[in-house]
Amino acid sequence: MIKIAILGMGTVGSGVVAIMNKRGENIKNKVGTELKVEKILVKDNSKKREIELPPEVLTYNVEDILDDPEIELIVELMGGEEPAYEYITKAISKGKSVVTANKLVIAKYGDEILKLARENEVQVSFEASVAGGIPIIRPLKESLVANRIEEIYGILNGTTNYILTKMTQERIEFDKALEEAQRLGYAERDPSSDTKGFDAAYKIAILSSIAFETSVDADSIYIEGIEGVTLEDIKLADELGYVIKLLAIGKKYDDGLNIRVHPAFISKNHPLAMVNGAYNAIYLYGDAVGDVMLYGKGAGQMPTGSAVVADIIQVAKDINYNRLDTHSLGAPRNQQIKEINQIDNSFYLRIQVLDKPGVMSQVTKVLGDNHVSLSAVSQKHMLTPIVPLVLITHPVKEENMRKSLYELENLESVVKINNLIRVEKKHNG
Amino acid sequence: MIKIAILGMGTVGSGVVAIMNKRGENIKNKVGTELKVEKILVKDNSKKREIELPPEVLTYNVEDILDDPEIELIVELMGGEEPAYEYITKAISKGKSVVTANKLVIAKYGDEILKLARENEVQVSFEASVAGGIPIIRPLKESLVANRIEEIYGILNGTTNYILTKMTQERIEFDKALEEAQRLGYAERDPSSDTKGFDAAYKIAILSSIAFETSVDADSIYIEGIEGVTLEDIKLADELGYVIKLLAIGKKYDDGLNIRVHPAFISKNHPLAMVNGAYNAIYLYGDAVGDVMLYGKGAGQMPTGSAVVADIIQVAKDINYNRLDTHSLGAPRNQQIKEINQIDNSFYLRIQVLDKPGVMSQVTKVLGDNHVSLSAVSQKHMLTPIVPLVLITHPVKEENMRKSLYELENLESVVKINNLIRVEKKHNG
Repeated sequence: MIKIAILGMGTVGSGVVAIMNKRGENIKNKVGTELKVEKILVKDNSKKREIELPPEVLTYNVEDILDDPEIELIVELMGGEEPAYEYITKAISKGKSVVTANKLVIAKYGDEILKLARENEVQVSFEASVAGGIPIIRPLKESLVANRIEEIYGILNGTTNYILTKMTQERIEFDKALEEAQRLGYAERDPSSDTKGFDAAYKIAILSSIAFETSVDADSIYIEGIEGVTLEDIKLADELGYVIKLLAIGKKYDDGLNIRVHPAFISKNHPLAMVNGAYNAIYLYGDAVGDVMLYGKGAGQMPTGSAVVADIIQVAKDINYNRLDTHSLGAPRNQQIKEINQIDNSFYLRIQVLDKPGVMSQVTKVLGDNHVSLSAVSQKHMLTPIVPLVLITHPVKEENMRKSLYELENLESVVKINNLIRVEKKHNG
Repeated sequence: MIKIAILGMGTVGSGVVAIMNKRGENIKNKVGTELKVEKILVKDNSKKREIELPPEVLTYNVEDILDDPEIELIVELMGGEEPAYEYITKAISKGKSVVTANKLVIAKYGDEILKLARENEVQVSFEASVAGGIPIIRPLKESLVANRIEEIYGILNGTTNYILTKMTQERIEFDKALEEAQRLGYAERDPSSDTKGFDAAYKIAILSSIAFETSVDADSIYIEGIEGVTLEDIKLADELGYVIKLLAIGKKYDDGLNIRVHPAFISKNHPLAMVNGAYNAIYLYGDAVGDVMLYGKGAGQMPTGSAVVADIIQVAKDINYNRLDTHSLGAPRNQQIKEINQIDNSFYLRIQVLDKPGVMSQVTKVLGDNHVSLSAVSQKHMLTPIVPLVLITHPVKEENMRKSLYELENLESVVKINNLIRVEKKHNG
C-alpha cells in the first residue's frame, strides 16, 4: 500500500478525491497496489465540503503530514506561492515525491525544486500546472523527445479565450464580455492575472523550460494582456481573414529563445483559430514530427483532476515498482532569452489620420525609412475629417516598428495610434 | 552502452537513423548511456540507400540479430504481417524488448505479443503504429489514465483524408482526387487498403484496445470505405453545414463496445472538420477530462520516425535504469463488440424520387413505420420527372434504418437509393 497526502481541498482537490473514489479499482490495478489517502491538509475543518471525507484524515497541521515517514507522496493543490513552495520543498527534503498543479511555484522555482528532487531521489510531476487536462508535459518529455522543438504557440488561458471568443462571436466590447465571464465564473472578481497575461506567462515559462530543455526565468517574458483589444480590432481582423487570440509563444532561435505573451492575429485557417471559449490548445513545431496540436479543457475541477490523478498514478506506480525516474529532472539555465525588440514579426497597425492629400505618402515614408514594408493597407473613405487607416506589415524587427510608431505619433497628420497587434504565422508561412 | 538492431531500412528506417544521428548527444543524455545500432536487417545489401550506413552493421540474416545476446532492443520497421510477426515473437522469446511501427501485426496479434512480453519480462512499444508522429498511445496509457474513455473519433488515414479534402475544396470527383493523391505519392498504386478503410480499422482496433482496456478483434470491426462518397454528397453536406470525413470510431457503452470505420457527416464547427489533407487527428471523450483532440502528421518518414525514436529512447532508458515496465502490458478480451445493427445513429439519406404528388408522404410513411424521424428534409424542385430528395434523420437504430431502405427500394416512386451516410455528433450533442 502507498500512502499519500493531499494539501488543499478546494475545487481541484475535491475533483481528485472524486476521481480516485470512482476509479479506485482501476487505479489499484494500474499502480500495482492500493493507494491510500492518509491525510488531507485543510484550512477549516468545519467547512461544508463538496465531497464527504473521513474526519480522521483531515488535519490543519502540515507537520502531521511532513513528519509522517509512511507518507511517500504529497499532492499539493493549495495554489499560490506560499505556503505551497515551503511545503513542497520540505516534503522533498524529507524524501517524499510531489505531484502539484501549481503553475506559479513551478514557473518561479521549478529549477530549484527539480534540483532538490534529484538530490533527494524523489519525483516531482506537474502535468496539471499547464493546460488542465490536456496531455502536454509528459508528451513533450516522452512522446516528442526525439525532436528539437522549435516553436510553441499556446492558448493557455481560458478566461481570456472566453472573452475574446465572446467579443468575436457576439460583437461585444471587452468590458461586457468580461462581465459575462465573471457572471459565469470563468473570470475572477479581480481578473487581472488572466487579462494582463500573467497566468499564460507562467504556463509558457513551464512549457518552454521543458521543450527547450533549459530553465526559463519567468520574469524575462514579454507580456501584454488583452485589455487593449477593442471590438473594432476584432471586426477588422475578421475582415482581413484573421481572429485575435491571446497567444503564449516560445521560439527557439540559433542564438537564443524568445518567449512572450500577447494578443495576436492568426489566420482563420490556422487550427488554433477554432479553439474557442474556455478551451485551451498547444500548437508546436518539432523538427521531425512537424506540426502537432493538443486541444482540450484547460481548467476546471475534473479536467485538472484528470491530470493530477494521472501524475499520482504514475509516481505511485514508480514508487511501487521501485523505478522512480529522477534522472531527467530539470535543466540548467543555458539559453539566452532574446529581447522582444530583436524579434521579427508582422504587425497589424490601426491609426487615425487626417483625410487630406499627401497623408498616405507621409505615413508610408516613415515606415519605409524604418524598413517596414506593407502587405496590406485598408483606408476607409468616410465623410469625416479624420479617417481610420489599417496596415498589415511584412515581418520586421520590433525595434524598427516601434521607432516607426514614435515617428508616426509625431506627424501632424496622424491623429491617433489606436492599436498595434502582432500577426503570427504558421511555421511554414 | 545499449545495443539495438533495426529490422528494415525503408523510408521509416532511414528516418529513424537520420534522427538518431542528428540527435545523438541528446539521446545519450536522455537514455543515460550510449545507444549503438549494432545490426540492421536489410533485403538487399547492394541497394542505394538514402542514408549512408557502415557496411559491417548490415545483414541479410535475421539470426545474426536474434542470436546476439548483447542486442537488447529490436526495432521492427519492415511492415506487413510476415516475417515481421515471426521476428517480433522470436525476439521477445529471446528476452529482447521490441519497438515497432507495425499496425497490422499489433492489431492482429497485439494480445498474444503483449502476453509473451509479460512472460519474458521485456517491453513492447508501438506508438508509431497509429497516427504517425501524433502522441496518442502513451498519452492514453499515462496522461489520460484517470479517465474512463467513452468515445474515440479518429481521422487516422491520411490518404483518404487527402482525397476527401481535395473533393471538398476543389469540387472534384473521387477518381480524380485519387489520381492526384497517387501522383503525389499520398496513395499507393493499389489504394484499396486505404480507400476501403482497412488501414484505419487496424488503427482504431489498437486505440480501442488501449482506451477501453480490452483486446479488440480487428475482424469484428464494421468497415465502409470512401469509394461510395460522391461529389454530390460532399456538396450537399456543405449546404447542410457538414463536411464528410472517414472516421474511425470506438465507443464504450455499458453493455459493450462499438467499433467501426466509415465516412461520416460531421458539423463544420467540430474541431475534426478542420483536419485537412494528409493530417490526422484523434478526438476523444473521457469522463473526467472531457473532450481532447490530438492533431498532427499521421504518416511520413520523419513524423513516424519521431514516434519510433521516442519509443526507442523510452525503452532504452528503462533498460538502462533497470526499470522496464512489464506490469501493464495487454488486457484480456473482456468486452463484447456490439453489432452495428444495434447502434443508434443519425443518417443522411439521398434518394431519387418521381416528382409527383404523394411521393413525400409515401417516403415519410415508410420511415415513420420504422421509427425513423427526420431532422431535415431538402427536396429540390427541378424541371425533370425525377428529383433528388435529401433527408437527415434523428438518431435511430441502424436496423430500423436498413429496413426502411429496403422498403423504400420497393416503392415504385423511389427511383434510386443514392447514398446513406452516418452523421456523427459531439458527445454533448
